[in-house]
Amino acid sequence: MAELTPPDSPHEHLIQSPDPNHPANLICELCRKFYTLGWVTGTGGGTSIRNNDHIFIAPSGVQKELMDPKDMFVMCAQKREYLRKPNFLKPSACTPLFLAAFDRGAGCCIHTHSQWAVLVTLLVERELGPQACFEIEQIEQIKGIPKGRGKSGNLGYYDRLRIPIIENTAHEEDLTDSLEEAMEKYPDAYAILVRRHGIYVWGDNVHKAKTQCESIDYILQLAVEMHKIGLPWTKSRPQRTWFGRFLDGLQRPLIY
Amino acid sequence: MAELTPPDSPHEHLIQSPDPNHPANLICELCRKFYTLGWVTGTGGGTSIRNNDHIFIAPSGVQKELMDPKDMFVMCAQKREYLRKPNFLKPSACTPLFLAAFDRGAGCCIHTHSQWAVLVTLLVERELGPQACFEIEQIEQIKGIPKGRGKSGNLGYYDRLRIPIIENTAHEEDLTDSLEEAMEKYPDAYAILVRRHGIYVWGDNVHKAKTQCESIDYILQLAVEMHKIGLPWTKSRPQRTWFGRFLDGLQRPLIY
Amino acid sequence: MAELTPPDSPHEHLIQSPDPNHPANLICELCRKFYTLGWVTGTGGGTSIRNNDHIFIAPSGVQKELMDPKDMFVMCAQKREYLRKPNFLKPSACTPLFLAAFDRGAGCCIHTHSQWAVLVTLLVERELGPQACFEIEQIEQIKGIPKGRGKSGNLGYYDRLRIPIIENTAHEEDLTDSLEEAMEKYPDAYAILVRRHGIYVWGDNVHKAKTQCESIDYILQLAVEMHKIGLPWTKSRPQRTWFGRFLDGLQRPLIY
Amino acid sequence: MAELTPPDSPHEHLIQSPDPNHPANLICELCRKFYTLGWVTGTGGGTSIRNNDHIFIAPSGVQKELMDPKDMFVMCAQKREYLRKPNFLKPSACTPLFLAAFDRGAGCCIHTHSQWAVLVTLLVERELGPQACFEIEQIEQIKGIPKGRGKSGNLGYYDRLRIPIIENTAHEEDLTDSLEEAMEKYPDAYAILVRRHGIYVWGDNVHKAKTQCESIDYILQLAVEMHKIGLPWTKSRPQRTWFGRFLDGLQRPLIY
Repeated sequence: MAELTPPDSPHEHLIQSPDPNHPANLICELCRKFYTLGWVTGTGGGTSIRNNDHIFIAPSGVQKELMDPKDMFVMCAQKREYLRKPNFLKPSACTPLFLAAFDRGAGCCIHTHSQWAVLVTLLVERELGPQACFEIEQIEQIKGIPKGRGKSGNLGYYDRLRIPIIENTAHEEDLTDSLEEAMEKYPDAYAILVRRHGIYVWGDNVHKAKTQCESIDYILQLAVEMHKIGLPWTKSRPQRTWFGRFLDGLQRPLIY
Repeated sequence: MAELTPPDSPHEHLIQSPDPNHPANLICELCRKFYTLGWVTGTGGGTSIRNNDHIFIAPSGVQKELMDPKDMFVMCAQKREYLRKPNFLKPSACTPLFLAAFDRGAGCCIHTHSQWAVLVTLLVERELGPQACFEIEQIEQIKGIPKGRGKSGNLGYYDRLRIPIIENTAHEEDLTDSLEEAMEKYPDAYAILVRRHGIYVWGDNVHKAKTQCESIDYILQLAVEMHKIGLPWTKSRPQRTWFGRFLDGLQRPLIY
Repeated sequence: MAELTPPDSPHEHLIQSPDPNHPANLICELCRKFYTLGWVTGTGGGTSIRNNDHIFIAPSGVQKELMDPKDMFVMCAQKREYLRKPNFLKPSACTPLFLAAFDRGAGCCIHTHSQWAVLVTLLVERELGPQACFEIEQIEQIKGIPKGRGKSGNLGYYDRLRIPIIENTAHEEDLTDSLEEAMEKYPDAYAILVRRHGIYVWGDNVHKAKTQCESIDYILQLAVEMHKIGLPWTKSRPQRTWFGRFLDGLQRPLIY
Repeated sequence: MAELTPPDSPHEHLIQSPDPNHPANLICELCRKFYTLGWVTGTGGGTSIRNNDHIFIAPSGVQKELMDPKDMFVMCAQKREYLRKPNFLKPSACTPLFLAAFDRGAGCCIHTHSQWAVLVTLLVERELGPQACFEIEQIEQIKGIPKGRGKSGNLGYYDRLRIPIIENTAHEEDLTDSLEEAMEKYPDAYAILVRRHGIYVWGDNVHKAKTQCESIDYILQLAVEMHKIGLPWTKSRPQRTWFGRFLDGLQRPLIY
């Protein structure tokens, strides 16, 4: 997509580097990996990295596995103004949500359309109600998630992982308010699920955001498979009588 | 398969280009990707690109992940006559269906045997009847599908995605009439499911056809997984009584 | 594994060729692909190609994705004697089964441990009895399978694909008799399932064996998924009363 | 991560080799493969190789698909002291568990967070009780697992594969006692499952550990799929009456 970018821009140096760990190169490499994981199929999802004064953001509506550093938007972290806008490319609608994560100290934010995320939001709504978070405990992979802002170290095996769920909106940018609200209400969360949409995961840096996103997606997939074979996500959940569960089964639409 | 092609043909230049975005190269690259997605296993499926006066079509009966530009058929878009026919290769039986899409302004048409597509056609037939379309709403990925011919922009989150389903026939070319019928009846559709067979997806250009095909396949997979755990595809579906659903469950063959 | 092969053998030329389509190179390339498909995990499965007077066979007990032409066994097609035996490698226990296919005119035979194959053999045993074949009809991918020996062309959409199932034995070579029996009883079959084990698929040449194996594996996977959501494999299956199906459901062990 | 390692260390030669089969290179290559299999997602899992006097161990908390030989820890097999510790990297918490396997003659030990392993530990707990092992028989892939220490050859098709399950602990190193206990109680085991965590698999050498790990993971996945469609893992399991099974079904939480 090189032809879409302004060769004469004064800010080309911002996205030109031979270093594979330069944010512009890293976003392309990460998105190639996310594509194979099914997280950014059909131009869905997005990724943004904050590097000191600069915020690098993948554009909207491009094939994420084919991106080129020339496709990157670059924003000034202070002024929140674009330093570089590729011609003919639209900035990501996720931008305000990425910025909300950066406002809370994140160094990288990843948005995926993982089907496991979508299925879990639907299961939680049906089984626990529209206000409920996704909660799971006593799964080793939980130890891949940090305790929370300002706290050192990661969750323990016996800690409960709690991921808030917000309702989807017609326009992605309109998610910002409820996302920030959830961030305030759950200050320890490093991820927020969006009903019928996907998930936002952020971390202190690229390494943490990517590995936390992998750990959470692993847990979400496991949760769906556990549900399929009737295994509860939390041990504390009060057991119903068998007749109550029998009726629950009937309440659930047998034909989709 | 180079040895299968006529080195002395006057039209070799049509498929020879160093540009990775040349249709002959692009079809090979796309099919390698589609193979890894399970869309074109066992020589199934196909892809065609219209480039101004020329229509490039992958041949029939070849391993789609091993194709070479030399394997491409090239047709004159006006006269609908082959300008280039590789020796020993059969033209795709999908050709008339691809042409039907090009007649309606498509720039690229993709045919897959995705198992999700096949399963959805069977679920819709059993649950909603043989005349029903596949319908789903309030899934973010729906926003990856355009509103329809002549309309600008894509479907919204609250719009309902509606994909018509036609019955399969003994010979693929015999699908043409019902495909065109469905195209007339559902002028906004960019995809048509074929019962027990797969799906045809087209778009204004290669980028759109490929990403729409990915978005639709994502939605079809999600729909099957939603069904497995008893989640409805549409909110408007009238709720049955638990006893009605109980009987529905019994009506469904418990042994396959 | 080069160090395992006799550098001084008079038959090294049989497996040394720059041609990617040379059987010794092709088997390695195919097995790399089969590994990614989960067909030959843990040294399982195998592949053999007949090329005029020579039969090339992948060894036993090696990581199939890491094979080297130097690991190939080569047998004289007439005398059925090894022309080349790599030191320290064991010939495949599948060898007599591959030879049975070659006796019937095959040019290539593939053996996989595909989980879909194993699951289908278990479902058929439970639902239709230990004598039953796997049968399915009206799935487009069936058209990827030839009609049978001496018959021209492939099965049609309305034809029924019938794959015999033989019982597994303690030692793989002991499968030979029942495999040949099944080949006689079902002369049109290009594949035979082995209960709790996997599948043997053969074809007139490498291209056909590989694509037929892909088409059959696609169909076996689809069959398992169809069963999970209560969809019958054949239309002609007599419908039971809902109460009969209700009892069938109870007969099936609910706890694994 | 080269910058994390001490260029002036006297033991750099231990991890520098052009030989792809050198343990330091092999661990990186294996972990790249394990990542694509979903075994070491989110920095989970680990791998260790014993090579005569030296034990090579992948570090903790790194992206396993991106490891570099420079990231390896090297320990003296006798003294159990580190000969090489990369700066800024933490040694794997699995180290004492790897050493327990080496104490019993293993040459390589692999730890994965495979979801199939986690699901099987949960199914066994629910269906057979917290003390039960995972047991399965008459699956061909069982022949990929050795009979046991000091015994020659692999399990047969009619042998029962028995994998002990230990309870998870808050800290991975605290698993050592119960792991060693299980190793004593089941001296023939080459693998031990950890409830809600994953699995440890070891073998006499890298080839055996890797292929045994693949065979076991294949069997664990198959076991979960068998359970989903109501197929028993062992033939000897006493059949319940249909009413008993009916009640069993009700006992199982229908809502997760």
